[in-house]
Amino acid sequence: MAETEIGFISGTGPQGRGLAMRFALAGVRVAVGSRQAERAQATVDELNGLAAAQVGQGNLQPIVAGENHAVVSGSRFVMLTVPFEHAADTVRGYKDSFREGSVFVDVTVPLQFGKGDVQVVVPSQGSGSRQLRGILPESVPFTGAFKTLPAHVLEDIASPMDCDTFVFGDNREAKQQLMELIRRVPSLRPLDVGGISAAATVEGMTALVIRINRKQKSQAARFRVAGIP
Amino acid sequence: MAETEIGFISGTGPQGRGLAMRFALAGVRVAVGSRQAERAQATVDELNGLAAAQVGQGNLQPIVAGENHAVVSGSRFVMLTVPFEHAADTVRGYKDSFREGSVFVDVTVPLQFGKGDVQVVVPSQGSGSRQLRGILPESVPFTGAFKTLPAHVLEDIASPMDCDTFVFGDNREAKQQLMELIRRVPSLRPLDVGGISAAATVEGMTALVIRINRKQKSQAARFRVAGIP
Repeated sequence: MAETEIGFISGTGPQGRGLAMRFALAGVRVAVGSRQAERAQATVDELNGLAAAQVGQGNLQPIVAGENHAVVSGSRFVMLTVPFEHAADTVRGYKDSFREGSVFVDVTVPLQFGKGDVQVVVPSQGSGSRQLRGILPESVPFTGAFKTLPAHVLEDIASPMDCDTFVFGDNREAKQQLMELIRRVPSLRPLDVGGISAAATVEGMTALVIRINRKQKSQAARFRVAGIP
Repeated sequence: MAETEIGFISGTGPQGRGLAMRFALAGVRVAVGSRQAERAQATVDELNGLAAAQVGQGNLQPIVAGENHAVVSGSRFVMLTVPFEHAADTVRGYKDSFREGSVFVDVTVPLQFGKGDVQVVVPSQGSGSRQLRGILPESVPFTGAFKTLPAHVLEDIASPMDCDTFVFGDNREAKQQLMELIRRVPSLRPLDVGGISAAATVEGMTALVIRINRKQKSQAARFRVAGIP
């Protein structure tokens, strides 16, 4: 598989699909992985069709498909968008496939949906990201982003994102590179909120914004920060 | 002292000053308290002058001053805007002065400022609000609001707030009444984020937004939620 800028481990769910299309439409080379390469290919065929319908075939950087290990070893930024209950096992399964210089991007949030409400289930490490950081080799820089973005909006590629995303990570260089990458997506502004200690708050904000959605009968609530240049 | 809709315990700091003026300009009867009535009066004279310069004397609902106990017992919504290190002692000092039917509004955040960064110092109860809830009599409904609003913006009454404020509380009726009150301030939208369990995230958001301010050399960063009606 040719090298890509972004690879999604098991990226066939709503968050992975939406992010893959948004980045592909921004001209970024993206791979979507799955445990079965055929399953990834079926998703990617669909996503390329949706994206091409939006901008025309000629303007699209086509998304490629692959088995997860190949996607991880072939990508500069490896993004995890699986439901949180599978996050730790997924990281364990692919942690040795990262190539030197690649950056891990955690998009997962430990949410629990129940009787009309949603809560963050805080792992003993203090946040979902801290738990995953403990599993990933120290040599792989760990960042977090996109946690508060609604999949509904990400997948609706005809509409602008028109919001901010909160980016954190203890490795400054990796974080800056990720922020540069995010700036390529129109109307999605990355905001640096510090190191991994910010993860607990960002994950809590995901629960808050889903709660706001439910109260307001929306699926599109998302954060913007006013008052900065 | 005549009854007021809002009373600020030791409200002579930036957050209290800003909120007092914003509500007074919205036609709400506000009292600002201090341990010394004369100190409250000096602040209130200044605030009324600033507010009158904004809208003209005739259109202003003048703010009144009082000693803290009188302000607490005479107000429908009692708001706490002191620095967090004084919050617990302040609540202890005035908790028996609440009249029946009044509502406590926690505006404090347990922040710690240090070498170029700001952190939330999470009390053992899980959040600043939970700690204060444990001190206040159960009979007084406990709500939280305004925690993420920058004092710099609140005090700059010539500029619209143009942002949202996250409101929480376990007593639905008290929370709804508080939200109705907040809706009187132009371009400040209250968003219901659930019960007191939301306090930890909201307090964390205050640290995030201050961190964003520092990185972006602003004093005006504040949250808006896009994508809701």
